[in-house]
Amino acid sequence: MSQEHLGLMAAILSEKGVTHAVVSPGSRNAPAIIALSQSKKIKLLSIADERSAGFYALGMAQQLRRPVALLCTSGSAALNYAPAVVEAYYQKVPLLVITADRPEEWIDQGDGQTIRQRDIYANYIRKSFHLPHAVAAPENLWQFSRQLNEAIDRTLFPAPGPVHVNLPLREPLYDIRPFDLSKMPRTIRLLPVETLIPQEELLRLADIWNKAGSKLILAGQMTPGHKLETLLSRFAEDPSVAILTETTTNLNLPGCIRCIDRTIEGISDKLIAGFTPDILLTFGGAVVSKKIKSLLRKMQPAQHWHINPDTEDFHLDTYLSLTLTIPAGPETFFRQLAPHLQTTESNYRALWAERDKAHRERHHTYLASAPFSDFRVFELLFRHIPRTTCLHLGNSTPIRYAQLFDEASEFETWSNRGTSGIDGSVSTAAGAAIISEKPVTIITGDIGFLYDSNALWNTNPPAGLRIILINNGGGNIFRFIPGPDRFEELEPFIETAHSFSAEGIARNFGFSYFSAGDAGSLSRALQPFFGKQENNRPALLEVFTPSKTSAQVLKDYFKFIIS
Amino acid sequence: MSQEHLGLMAAILSEKGVTHAVVSPGSRNAPAIIALSQSKKIKLLSIADERSAGFYALGMAQQLRRPVALLCTSGSAALNYAPAVVEAYYQKVPLLVITADRPEEWIDQGDGQTIRQRDIYANYIRKSFHLPHAVAAPENLWQFSRQLNEAIDRTLFPAPGPVHVNLPLREPLYDIRPFDLSKMPRTIRLLPVETLIPQEELLRLADIWNKAGSKLILAGQMTPGHKLETLLSRFAEDPSVAILTETTTNLNLPGCIRCIDRTIEGISDKLIAGFTPDILLTFGGAVVSKKIKSLLRKMQPAQHWHINPDTEDFHLDTYLSLTLTIPAGPETFFRQLAPHLQTTESNYRALWAERDKAHRERHHTYLASAPFSDFRVFELLFRHIPRTTCLHLGNSTPIRYAQLFDEASEFETWSNRGTSGIDGSVSTAAGAAIISEKPVTIITGDIGFLYDSNALWNTNPPAGLRIILINNGGGNIFRFIPGPDRFEELEPFIETAHSFSAEGIARNFGFSYFSAGDAGSLSRALQPFFGKQENNRPALLEVFTPSKTSAQVLKDYFKFIIS
Repeated sequence: MSQEHLGLMAAILSEKGVTHAVVSPGSRNAPAIIALSQSKKIKLLSIADERSAGFYALGMAQQLRRPVALLCTSGSAALNYAPAVVEAYYQKVPLLVITADRPEEWIDQGDGQTIRQRDIYANYIRKSFHLPHAVAAPENLWQFSRQLNEAIDRTLFPAPGPVHVNLPLREPLYDIRPFDLSKMPRTIRLLPVETLIPQEELLRLADIWNKAGSKLILAGQMTPGHKLETLLSRFAEDPSVAILTETTTNLNLPGCIRCIDRTIEGISDKLIAGFTPDILLTFGGAVVSKKIKSLLRKMQPAQHWHINPDTEDFHLDTYLSLTLTIPAGPETFFRQLAPHLQTTESNYRALWAERDKAHRERHHTYLASAPFSDFRVFELLFRHIPRTTCLHLGNSTPIRYAQLFDEASEFETWSNRGTSGIDGSVSTAAGAAIISEKPVTIITGDIGFLYDSNALWNTNPPAGLRIILINNGGGNIFRFIPGPDRFEELEPFIETAHSFSAEGIARNFGFSYFSAGDAGSLSRALQPFFGKQENNRPALLEVFTPSKTSAQVLKDYFKFIIS
Repeated sequence: MSQEHLGLMAAILSEKGVTHAVVSPGSRNAPAIIALSQSKKIKLLSIADERSAGFYALGMAQQLRRPVALLCTSGSAALNYAPAVVEAYYQKVPLLVITADRPEEWIDQGDGQTIRQRDIYANYIRKSFHLPHAVAAPENLWQFSRQLNEAIDRTLFPAPGPVHVNLPLREPLYDIRPFDLSKMPRTIRLLPVETLIPQEELLRLADIWNKAGSKLILAGQMTPGHKLETLLSRFAEDPSVAILTETTTNLNLPGCIRCIDRTIEGISDKLIAGFTPDILLTFGGAVVSKKIKSLLRKMQPAQHWHINPDTEDFHLDTYLSLTLTIPAGPETFFRQLAPHLQTTESNYRALWAERDKAHRERHHTYLASAPFSDFRVFELLFRHIPRTTCLHLGNSTPIRYAQLFDEASEFETWSNRGTSGIDGSVSTAAGAAIISEKPVTIITGDIGFLYDSNALWNTNPPAGLRIILINNGGGNIFRFIPGPDRFEELEPFIETAHSFSAEGIARNFGFSYFSAGDAGSLSRALQPFFGKQENNRPALLEVFTPSKTSAQVLKDYFKFIIS
């Protein structure tokens, strides 16, 4: 049997705009790797650990805004993609996950590296396809190419996400002939469309909006490069509107509240009514702040409108108060609404702005005398990281600290907040560094770094990658969550306390290594760290911070800003 | 809401014989960790990377022959268990996989670390349970404890395997009161039973067996400690019976063919009829040798009996010739059949034995003058590794080389041949070293080692663990598979070529490090390596071998033994 349909696969991928594939070495998928590499139109990156490979592809797809293909061998390799696939599903990133498989008749018949791969990502995939073994028969050729056409388009429409293509291959595996492109079946194209709000509905919404004395806009995670700054500037000037954004919103608009946790700290039951809006308007992906979720669930505003163009998850009622889902893009909504806006007199925006300003001043006062700790390190980093860098924030500590700094909004910011796992933050940043023309910096905690240290295992790591590792000895996040500190028996299990450094790992994989243990050494390290390295290596900067002091400094901070 | 049912969970686990749990730090599962640790009856091991934690538990459960509990937080953490769960499923190892979850009402409502965990391992799990959030209502108490009773028993009956328990928890998470043991519900016990072959059927089988002039017994992977040596010795003496075993069969019986690939090399189409048995009898798990699978599929013996006590996967037709499934244990079958056996005159055993002997002699001649290479390293290792060691063999190269040495049968041997992944061999060995009273040695290739290097990330790594890493620069297995060497474009992708050493990683995690680059330095390193280390550390020995020479030595070997 000839494997010429693999050449067809490569041709369809390339025809439909797939330009990059991350492949992991294996035997069953080797003919598909050969076919992709023979096509010359798709750039291949080889990453051996499929878990890391999955997150590399995620980081690349985030930058490209097009699907990146993944290709692995049969068996548990496919399951090592699962953490990246579930993140891509909830973060809405386009991935084309191709898993080579044994022929169907050999499933569960005692053959090696054979598992039930069909529908293996069932709980967290846009759609799953199972391709025919060969395309000699016309109906198989039709099915093979039609399914691939749909699979690629489904990574982007109706909303971006991961799609699974299971590719069973029969032996002999290496009878690979280039596909005769004159026999290339037609390509099926999906027409781009725009979802609009009908005029009548729009006028009704505008009327309700204009009459409401207080409106709160809360924006979740958004891909950098959206056009919302201009569209929202009109709203930001309205005294009846307050806009809350997070670092991951990638919205740098004057007048927004950018540090939600800092601002809402201390809004007591007595104060809550004043901050409760008539209308809550939300859009974007995940919201990092647990405190705002908890506060809004208490508030239960009379109306909550949620803008969400994804037809797969409408009626997302995160704040227990959803009254209207608007299944269109936020750009469309704001553009359509703009001509009908009227300014409404109110002190609502001022109420938020004054609180924000007061707490910002307390923030600076506090940090000016805070001892060296995680918090101080973040202050120094946000002051010194070049603004041209594309900034990745690891889970869970780095992304939470970033929310406390106005300066964080000056960066193009990424974070794996789909499922908020620590499993692939470094690989995601490394993948981004392969595509991005800007340098890429990731700030990670020690547990997240060690978890994903295979991100460094790359024969040709991207020169623009900079890893800043804040090593406080492990798992300090659990010191900030109320509760566990009452249980001493938990310490050895929950804290992952350790005394490991990253130096050996960094040197092993050919990264330049820098370290710092106080404000002075950190300041001195930053310039050479961000500079060009010998042999164009990427670099890792490990900052050692005191664990208990760091936890205390953060706890005292929240007391101080409301004192 | 009180979390007292977590105390009940700990009590039920302990009551039903769960003595060990591998936990990974997290927020949602923290109360369950506290409850397990308060019970004092279950030993907890904390491993941060859930992929590695899963394989640690697998290695521990292999040694204990009882379920080991796994406990992780919600979200993608659960999916990092998937590679170990699928391996446990196909290797039939008991694992109790407990995944903390967000409350059901919050699934897909924009909350953090929340995915659809129900049935998340659907394709590779014995059974999945979804526990109630609390046990205040009597029906919930009944459901909670009844489900846990069944889940634990299902890890062992009707055959060992992984079982999933999804554990949704509501806030407040840390209202943990010890469970009042006087309220402990009854424990449900599962009576051990034995499946027997009825006398009439047994006599019929014995009659067919005794009349057949040639019988081939092929044994797959078996857990060390089985009682088959004595039972099979009677068969081994029968001139009409040839017994083929692999290293992973853990059967050290004189007269067996232990090196299948070496023996069957060169059985041409002309010779095949002589080796084809009247009856093929198989039992045990996965068979490593691809060559024997391919040969038997060609032979298609008239009868193939397969002994398999697992009711979940009967009619496993690996050799395209299955005629009878015997759903009982191999011990039972051989014990029941023994009294009815008659010796049958035949030259069948002799035919196999002569070929085995001839190829063994060629093996020794070849190796005596072979240059330093992977093959020579294995020869030295099998000569010098202390026989008391519990030997783990990584995928894919080490397990394949081991099949070529008769000496490999002198060890208690383990290998992840359920799905034959490279993803967790080192963690599995590390888990075994925690339980085993014997020292544990793992032989791994470089790709498998780097893939699973988080196995070393353990604040208290077991002193008895010895890692032998054969570093030939990456992925040499693909040089042995016919086909890919014709495709030069494949080299950079399929080979994972690299120039990394493990020294930095070993030192980072506090392992003693040894290295060798030729036969002399290897011999000198072995004694101190296997000796007691400073501070009771585990140790890693890295053997650097030439990549192309190693591939050539193995290719030439198979030519030489049949020349």
